[in-house]
Amino acid sequence: MKIALIGAGNVATHLGTKLVEVGEEVVQVYSRSLPKATELAKALGARPIDDLYGLTAKADLYIIAVHDSAIAEVLKKIEEIVVDKMVVHTSGATPAKVFEAAPDLVRTGVFYPLQTFTKERKVDFSEVPICLSAADETDLNLLELLALKLSTNVYKVTDAQRAWLHLSAVFVNNFTNHLFEIGHSCLKKQKLPFEMLLPLIQETVAKLDGGQPKLVQTGPAVRGDFSTVERHLTQLNGRGDLQEIYRVMTKHIKRTHADNWTH
Amino acid sequence: MKIALIGAGNVATHLGTKLVEVGEEVVQVYSRSLPKATELAKALGARPIDDLYGLTAKADLYIIAVHDSAIAEVLKKIEEIVVDKMVVHTSGATPAKVFEAAPDLVRTGVFYPLQTFTKERKVDFSEVPICLSAADETDLNLLELLALKLSTNVYKVTDAQRAWLHLSAVFVNNFTNHLFEIGHSCLKKQKLPFEMLLPLIQETVAKLDGGQPKLVQTGPAVRGDFSTVERHLTQLNGRGDLQEIYRVMTKHIKRTHADNWTH
Repeated sequence: MKIALIGAGNVATHLGTKLVEVGEEVVQVYSRSLPKATELAKALGARPIDDLYGLTAKADLYIIAVHDSAIAEVLKKIEEIVVDKMVVHTSGATPAKVFEAAPDLVRTGVFYPLQTFTKERKVDFSEVPICLSAADETDLNLLELLALKLSTNVYKVTDAQRAWLHLSAVFVNNFTNHLFEIGHSCLKKQKLPFEMLLPLIQETVAKLDGGQPKLVQTGPAVRGDFSTVERHLTQLNGRGDLQEIYRVMTKHIKRTHADNWTH
Repeated sequence: MKIALIGAGNVATHLGTKLVEVGEEVVQVYSRSLPKATELAKALGARPIDDLYGLTAKADLYIIAVHDSAIAEVLKKIEEIVVDKMVVHTSGATPAKVFEAAPDLVRTGVFYPLQTFTKERKVDFSEVPICLSAADETDLNLLELLALKLSTNVYKVTDAQRAWLHLSAVFVNNFTNHLFEIGHSCLKKQKLPFEMLLPLIQETVAKLDGGQPKLVQTGPAVRGDFSTVERHLTQLNGRGDLQEIYRVMTKHIKRTHADNWTH
């Protein structure tokens, strides 16, 4: 399959690298920044472009991996060039409605790898869930064949399902990482190394393999130990922001687990 | 070292098992519930008791691993028996002030393993940070020698440091697990398996090895993508509790990372 990659950021880099690794041909890499396009294109054996009007019309698949806010604009620019080709974006947050920006495109779809990509870190793509949708059933099956070359975890999802996957990802990744940051900052003030929390964090995640997170919830909120909750809140005096997070999370844990401690 | 273990819950079980594993002698296990005391005592080659007045006076170390709220009561009951022996509790949340309940005890300390223990899960104790404090310097060194047999991560901490470690643990473990629970519930409503989020969660944690969580924060809040934030909030209409968590976390991420997107 000849693939044109529109974007040279984290998703484009990881996805492009994996595509080449499994034998697909990336023919072009676009970025507004020519150095960025060139760097990734070079790694993938592709040609770099920094102007979408130079986009090839001869690829089989166009993968748009740019910022969510730029997808519609890209679609409008490439509409006439790629009119009868398959065009997908990689965004979890962007509804299929975005394709209405380019009504002439009919073979549209989404190829959403549910993972957090950082440029310097190699990710084991073979376990990344790839969430697919497509306007056309045949295209969906083509995308599935391609996705299965990259990963064992391939899912056909609706627009609504993808939106909830993306929102869930914000909870379990973005917000979780922010809680880690809070732990880091609390320990730093006490001149303690963040590494002290790593075994606990690793065990928190290791426990998930057993089943539902609800069943392994621990801590003062879930066991109704309100004197500890009160002491923690007092300890957070002067850190109103952390107090607010503590209050909200505690309230919600209590509510979700009400059965555990009212009996 | 002859050790009496007061408590037969998760901490007592994991700690007692490891102590025996490294060659220490657990002589007694106390629990209000004789079957619980018996079960653990049997596993450790110790004698079970369900009445603290039957506590041996001949142990070198008494480890109190009961609910935080029961520590003071235990101390009062054992005060006369163990008056010149070393007595520690294992609680992260309980200040050393608790020992004032038993003023005759002078060789007091804390032996706090910073980990979440679940009965059915084997924990690699050799990496669990053990946080120590003691009223007496010689006792502190004795506790350190013992702790180093169990784990390579041994720290002498102040009361204040332990309090912040415990509070941080609530953020990075209890609250994090609750975010996982939220992800689980969102996906369940969409008839999607929670396993779809596991590679993302695992990568979230794997990224921490590189250094500070702040440096690897991603998501709409940190990149100032407020249209995604607004769409997520709309999506959460009717789920006021989740909306509240989303709002508070987003606000705090924005505030902490203000430099990233105001320029």
